[in-house]
Amino acid sequence: MSELTFRVVLVEPLYSGNVGSVARVMRNFGFSELVLLNPCVLDNPARVMAVHAYDIIENARIEFSLEDALAGSNTIIGTTGLAGKTDNKHMRTPALSPRELKQKLTGKSGTVSLIFGREDRGLMNEELEFCDIVVNIPTNPEYTSMNLSHAVAVVLYELCDVEGGEVYLADHFDIELLYEHIDEVLTDIEYKEHKEDKTKLMLRRIFGRAELTGREVQTLRGILRRIQWKLNR
Amino acid sequence: MSELTFRVVLVEPLYSGNVGSVARVMRNFGFSELVLLNPCVLDNPARVMAVHAYDIIENARIEFSLEDALAGSNTIIGTTGLAGKTDNKHMRTPALSPRELKQKLTGKSGTVSLIFGREDRGLMNEELEFCDIVVNIPTNPEYTSMNLSHAVAVVLYELCDVEGGEVYLADHFDIELLYEHIDEVLTDIEYKEHKEDKTKLMLRRIFGRAELTGREVQTLRGILRRIQWKLNR
Repeated sequence: MSELTFRVVLVEPLYSGNVGSVARVMRNFGFSELVLLNPCVLDNPARVMAVHAYDIIENARIEFSLEDALAGSNTIIGTTGLAGKTDNKHMRTPALSPRELKQKLTGKSGTVSLIFGREDRGLMNEELEFCDIVVNIPTNPEYTSMNLSHAVAVVLYELCDVEGGEVYLADHFDIELLYEHIDEVLTDIEYKEHKEDKTKLMLRRIFGRAELTGREVQTLRGILRRIQWKLNR
Repeated sequence: MSELTFRVVLVEPLYSGNVGSVARVMRNFGFSELVLLNPCVLDNPARVMAVHAYDIIENARIEFSLEDALAGSNTIIGTTGLAGKTDNKHMRTPALSPRELKQKLTGKSGTVSLIFGREDRGLMNEELEFCDIVVNIPTNPEYTSMNLSHAVAVVLYELCDVEGGEVYLADHFDIELLYEHIDEVLTDIEYKEHKEDKTKLMLRRIFGRAELTGREVQTLRGILRRIQWKLNR
């Protein structure tokens, strides 16, 4: 099997009407796998707004931790209305546009989770840290806050005709092991503590954008093991 | 002045919440000119959904005929969820994707009206006939009906960074005179009546896609005058 599969993950959606609108636009663009993390009560507005796509909500997986919601993903894409405006620059920068994301995923194979945050506050920093790639929809700087389902509409519109291929993305779990390994090595080399968090995040962003294959992850870990071996001699 | 200006025209919107959502996404993507043709009552949901873009609705022009709504346009773009599935093939085909529309408008100058139809029935055939170009968002054939504000979101997302230029589009009014002139000539040459409507629509679609400049319209009318002159000798 060589293909891209997509999963839409809504983190703590507040309004069930928005969940319905998201389901509708997923069906419009041919997507079906929805994961809801700590959602609001899915009452009548969800059904009304979903129109002919309510089965997407009925079949949605409901989870209570981000880890569970993302299990099995190869690449995790976080969306944000703020492109690199926080103090910690590595958190949201560089953010890709939906079009750049499409180019990046072209020719790849694996499960891609697209995470969208709360209507009022988007994704928290600790959630964005989980992401391999951050995407920002290029909006008018005077009013960047988009309706949740509009943001989903624009991202799915771009991705609905992306062509996958033979480059198999590493499992996100293996990538997490790589990051843990990097943490170990930073400790081993007594990397300056006050720089450590920023540097780790920068490395996540770099490797996230690079879309590592499983083989590349193993080779990188081999280099890290070799560094540790040399340090311990 | 050489630039593209855009106008969003909603034809008989049924739900004021959708009008609000449209206003919000217009502001998100930097658009501001809204025209409402025979709209529903613009009650509280419009205000709630518009969030920080309610002034777009306050400043919207409300009209009661399509001619008034479109006055001053150079190019009229109709959107449809159905790409060429009607009997009359010229009505909706060939429809451009939003991306193709963007390419077509690149380098042009003039006022572009983007018309979106009713939530339940879209644009009527007689409204689509008015359009120079028909745009269809490439959706899943199993569920093509998009939420109105999602359709606006996708089209404005594509057009928000289109770069205009020095090619001045003809005024739509002059193009209408060209079409009337074509009708005259078809009568003069006793064109087969049962083919006439389809052929006229086909010519509209061809010239619409070609995005005629004012000079081209005048030259075409010169040819038509010459044909008529020769016929009358």
